[in-house]
Amino acid sequence: MIIQPQITRIGWIGAGVMGAGMCGHLIRAGFAATVFNRTKSKAEPLLKAGAAWAENPRAVAEASDVIFTIVGYPADVRRVILGPDGVLAGCKPGNVVVDMTTSEPSLAVEIAQAAARRKVAAIDAPVSGGDVGAREASLSIMIGGDAQAIESLRPCWKAMGKTFVRQGGPGAGQHAKMVNQILIADNMLGVCEGLIYAYKAGLDLETVMQSVASGAAGSWSLSNLGTRIIAEDFAPGFFVEHFVKDLGIALNEAKRMKLSLPGLALANQLYLSLVAHGHGRSGTQALQLTLAEMSNIDWRKRRANK
Amino acid sequence: MIIQPQITRIGWIGAGVMGAGMCGHLIRAGFAATVFNRTKSKAEPLLKAGAAWAENPRAVAEASDVIFTIVGYPADVRRVILGPDGVLAGCKPGNVVVDMTTSEPSLAVEIAQAAARRKVAAIDAPVSGGDVGAREASLSIMIGGDAQAIESLRPCWKAMGKTFVRQGGPGAGQHAKMVNQILIADNMLGVCEGLIYAYKAGLDLETVMQSVASGAAGSWSLSNLGTRIIAEDFAPGFFVEHFVKDLGIALNEAKRMKLSLPGLALANQLYLSLVAHGHGRSGTQALQLTLAEMSNIDWRKRRANK
Repeated sequence: MIIQPQITRIGWIGAGVMGAGMCGHLIRAGFAATVFNRTKSKAEPLLKAGAAWAENPRAVAEASDVIFTIVGYPADVRRVILGPDGVLAGCKPGNVVVDMTTSEPSLAVEIAQAAARRKVAAIDAPVSGGDVGAREASLSIMIGGDAQAIESLRPCWKAMGKTFVRQGGPGAGQHAKMVNQILIADNMLGVCEGLIYAYKAGLDLETVMQSVASGAAGSWSLSNLGTRIIAEDFAPGFFVEHFVKDLGIALNEAKRMKLSLPGLALANQLYLSLVAHGHGRSGTQALQLTLAEMSNIDWRKRRANK
Repeated sequence: MIIQPQITRIGWIGAGVMGAGMCGHLIRAGFAATVFNRTKSKAEPLLKAGAAWAENPRAVAEASDVIFTIVGYPADVRRVILGPDGVLAGCKPGNVVVDMTTSEPSLAVEIAQAAARRKVAAIDAPVSGGDVGAREASLSIMIGGDAQAIESLRPCWKAMGKTFVRQGGPGAGQHAKMVNQILIADNMLGVCEGLIYAYKAGLDLETVMQSVASGAAGSWSLSNLGTRIIAEDFAPGFFVEHFVKDLGIALNEAKRMKLSLPGLALANQLYLSLVAHGHGRSGTQALQLTLAEMSNIDWRKRRANK
């Protein structure tokens, strides 16, 4: 696999909340960027920062050495990379394709195989850290693929993230991200159940947090999202509908691997109930509303009810 | 309620791993201690440190201003405090009884009522932090009861813990501890499921931890018990059988409050399976063995299987 030792031209596909922030860091780090986004207006800040526009993913690839994608669902990844006007159609031997969408491990393997036939390296590199991590370049990047290709992109990883770790071959980055989401899903259930128990038992929620948040029951979700739940702030850091996509991928992979994950399955069902109640565009901490609903509690009116 | 302004004589009942460490801190802080334990030999270190021995809980109370109990199950709490030779039988008006066992909130209320009839204050003050917290005086103490009585014991709380917070009236300390255990139970399920997914997906577990432990998926349990699971170290920090007791109390309370906690109920069932397989005296992280068993994986032989 030939990797160009000096990457200067990057392509970027997907200028959502995450992608816009991440690509912005690469531009500021000195990379010449060519961008495409389904909705062009969302790419305006990047164009103003000096990025060139391309009409489709293929055209992005034709102008670039390394092409990054971060889009919505696995079907979007498939179209954007493997489609007729997709990234691979515009790639030259020695190019590197990096999908940073949280997507299917098996699709990452399929892309890597299709890329290899064109002497192109394909890397899966989903991230955790959310919009704040994208903005502050503090993401954790979980990387799967060819070790040499991954190493050649070190300046890019450093520009976007605080932690970047190669987890193995193609798909391993996606698998690591699934581990991340499983940990979060089960723990969010605990955060919600703990807080609703505290409320129903008549405790003051802030006072309970003083006792439990910094000890063995402590977690990032409790300290950060628990606080938002108490404040009845259900605005999205991370959309419920995207989380439900991720949990579906994890459960499918688990089924394929003959792996029983009862906690994840339960969390998934409760998140589906949350979507059914119209909260797909709320933040993941809105799971509290489902737990409250199950026990006939109106979480948002609880202060008035006291 | 008359509280003696200078407490010098403490009573201590329960010299297990937790109690021995906590009482030792009080003795070193200058309190004169009288102790009782069902098995006298376990109290020997405290007797050597200067504590006096009493033949039963009543005799402990007769020699003390404040009497602490930390025993096993709610039935033990009931016998030791409310029984014929129990603490209350030996109490004088103005005494304070502090139960630090993790026990039933309703029993804490019952004890407080029985104590009040004798002009005795009763406080529930369960702790989190485990054997290490007891040894290092870094416990989180969750306290329920009369505010003035609790305040009068400040020197005792400071000698034993790092965090001590009044959560409300009688039973509120126990309720806060239930919140703590609910948070831990659901999160432990996530830690186990995340790690078994990682293993089955062929990832290196230590490498996955590098990506997930310090971000949004991070927790005390993942960093501390996850590491032990990876090392196949199932020695008890906290016994499974005690945790199962706590989860049972939490589920009973939830039922009484008409509160649906599906994640806790699931975790409880899986912990019961763990007990059924003979792991009651393992540490709570042994839940991994139940998750592995469900997917027909022998976690302890996984390295050889690779």
